[in-house]
Amino acid sequence: MRAPASITRIFVSLGATALLCAAAGMAGLAAGHAQTANAPILEVPARAVPVPTTVSPQMAKIIGLPLRANWNVLPKTGEEWKPVADAGAAATIKNIPAMTERLHVKVEKTVIDGVRAFIVTPDVIPPENRNRLLIHVHGGCYVLNPGEAGLPEALFMAGFGHFKVIAVDYRMPPEAYFPAALDDGITVYKNAIKSTSPKNIAIFGSSAGGALALEMILKARQDGLPMPGAIAPGTPMSDVTKVGDTFVTNAMLDNVLVSPDGFCDAGTKVYANGHDLKDPLLSPVYGDMQGFPPTILTSGTRDLLLSNTVRVHRKLRQAGVEAMLQVYEGQSHAQYYRDDTSPEAKEAFEEIAGFFDKHLGK
Amino acid sequence: MRAPASITRIFVSLGATALLCAAAGMAGLAAGHAQTANAPILEVPARAVPVPTTVSPQMAKIIGLPLRANWNVLPKTGEEWKPVADAGAAATIKNIPAMTERLHVKVEKTVIDGVRAFIVTPDVIPPENRNRLLIHVHGGCYVLNPGEAGLPEALFMAGFGHFKVIAVDYRMPPEAYFPAALDDGITVYKNAIKSTSPKNIAIFGSSAGGALALEMILKARQDGLPMPGAIAPGTPMSDVTKVGDTFVTNAMLDNVLVSPDGFCDAGTKVYANGHDLKDPLLSPVYGDMQGFPPTILTSGTRDLLLSNTVRVHRKLRQAGVEAMLQVYEGQSHAQYYRDDTSPEAKEAFEEIAGFFDKHLGK
Repeated sequence: MRAPASITRIFVSLGATALLCAAAGMAGLAAGHAQTANAPILEVPARAVPVPTTVSPQMAKIIGLPLRANWNVLPKTGEEWKPVADAGAAATIKNIPAMTERLHVKVEKTVIDGVRAFIVTPDVIPPENRNRLLIHVHGGCYVLNPGEAGLPEALFMAGFGHFKVIAVDYRMPPEAYFPAALDDGITVYKNAIKSTSPKNIAIFGSSAGGALALEMILKARQDGLPMPGAIAPGTPMSDVTKVGDTFVTNAMLDNVLVSPDGFCDAGTKVYANGHDLKDPLLSPVYGDMQGFPPTILTSGTRDLLLSNTVRVHRKLRQAGVEAMLQVYEGQSHAQYYRDDTSPEAKEAFEEIAGFFDKHLGK
Repeated sequence: MRAPASITRIFVSLGATALLCAAAGMAGLAAGHAQTANAPILEVPARAVPVPTTVSPQMAKIIGLPLRANWNVLPKTGEEWKPVADAGAAATIKNIPAMTERLHVKVEKTVIDGVRAFIVTPDVIPPENRNRLLIHVHGGCYVLNPGEAGLPEALFMAGFGHFKVIAVDYRMPPEAYFPAALDDGITVYKNAIKSTSPKNIAIFGSSAGGALALEMILKARQDGLPMPGAIAPGTPMSDVTKVGDTFVTNAMLDNVLVSPDGFCDAGTKVYANGHDLKDPLLSPVYGDMQGFPPTILTSGTRDLLLSNTVRVHRKLRQAGVEAMLQVYEGQSHAQYYRDDTSPEAKEAFEEIAGFFDKHLGK
């Protein structure tokens, strides 16, 4: 009985949308994959993908959104990114006051050794967290979410986890290029360890922020700094060379990043500014992970960066690092911090908070 | 430069294979998903999926295999399944002698309180494992892998983990139907706890075996039996009602199970023999997981049962159970125990062994 509707949908898809999408977004998807004349290629047919019933109503709404508008508009310079970033930021910032209220946190703007930052403080900090501090590095492909627009994930963490958070508003193009974001993160960390034991500090962030959390550990080790007590890289951009299976398998399915040939990759290239994308300070999956602090990783089954996430997980475990993976049903890239009223958001950040509680000093 | 080849491939796919596959395998894929007249449906275009470069050469070979032959041949009775199971078993059993040699284990056939089983003993058992015992319940959709054909995963675990394993050769259709497999598992467990402390016992298995490991815990609790020290359900058939996002998103991509409308689902229906598929003793994701022993779950990014796996992981964590998830790059259903010479197999079972070592009594 279901078959006719389903098949019709597939044919419609083949006739119109799919061809357009394929032409626009699938070219070059095979980059970084084994492709010789004889290499086996699996032909996967078009499909009509409904919203799963296995998620909350709030998450169903997020999963049911169409592909991100302008995912294939690719600014080529820092100057071209600026108005895109500003427009996106304005939309995000509107939601911040209500979000801080719902999450019972307050936000203060500050400057730490020359780096712009925000102090996010929950109304109630339990005794075990009073000498603990989290450092947040926001996502946005190294070009998006300036200023308060970088705050949502920090608010979720402070609100659900009841930790004090310093959110780093690191420099981005066109103000500065690689390794400016990383340098700003390290500056804040260096300042923090003057007054808080590094073992009581955790670093977290998602997407570019997930990569930055990993990059900060690589850089801290290079610079001879002590390790923090734990890190939580969410769906990290751990490989920006487009290598990883889900870049292909979840393309055009992840409604946030959409395709490895989309805006996020373009933004990273602008930030890298000609620097080798395979440098572990841009693609940390290629870094040596021996001696990393305990790490919790978060992703979703539709995440374009699911491979980026599980590859880091495996590499950490191979290096003997305590590492936990959480993968959420049906979620595309970083959707666990899209709606603070979704039970999935509360769950993801409470899980991270529990991991921090287990591994941080008091 | 890459675009033309890629696009050509997509068009070829749209013109031939995709339409056939779509008609044959995609009908009804939307089962169990939110589908009202207005529910958003994402149209995902056809794609040409190469083998990722991020896996070992052995795993690349496995990932590069075409879709399982006869995945859409659906026997309807236990009697119809028998010759299919026997043919598959004959092919698998050929490989057992070389496998036991490479893995340095020996196998003895036995009967435990009327249940057929095998004792798998590694050549060397380290002192910490001498009072420990693992119970294996094999996969195969409750209808496949009779006799020695159910052994490979038990051999991997014994060989890589250096534990003694009892592999349960539980009854299957047409010999017996639900709950025969579960009953046989419980019989062996009851016998084992007479001579070994339950805290020193772990239960493991993949696919139907992963579901059985979970079902045995539900049943043991119902029967007032003590809990084992740990379990390792690999890519469990935790929901046989076709609910779960990756049933759709990984359909025709997973080259083992291929589609929720394929052979595996058909086999389970025959085993269930009219019993409600939503019963937690057939779909354990619907069971109460309070008080479950520490659990390690294994899956892959292309696994049709990735959602089945991560939903169990989240449900365990929500119940406060220590639960670890490992997800392997590019792997379809249960490919971590396909080739004992692949580094991914060694890694997956050593990870499980480490988890057992951490949680089992000595």
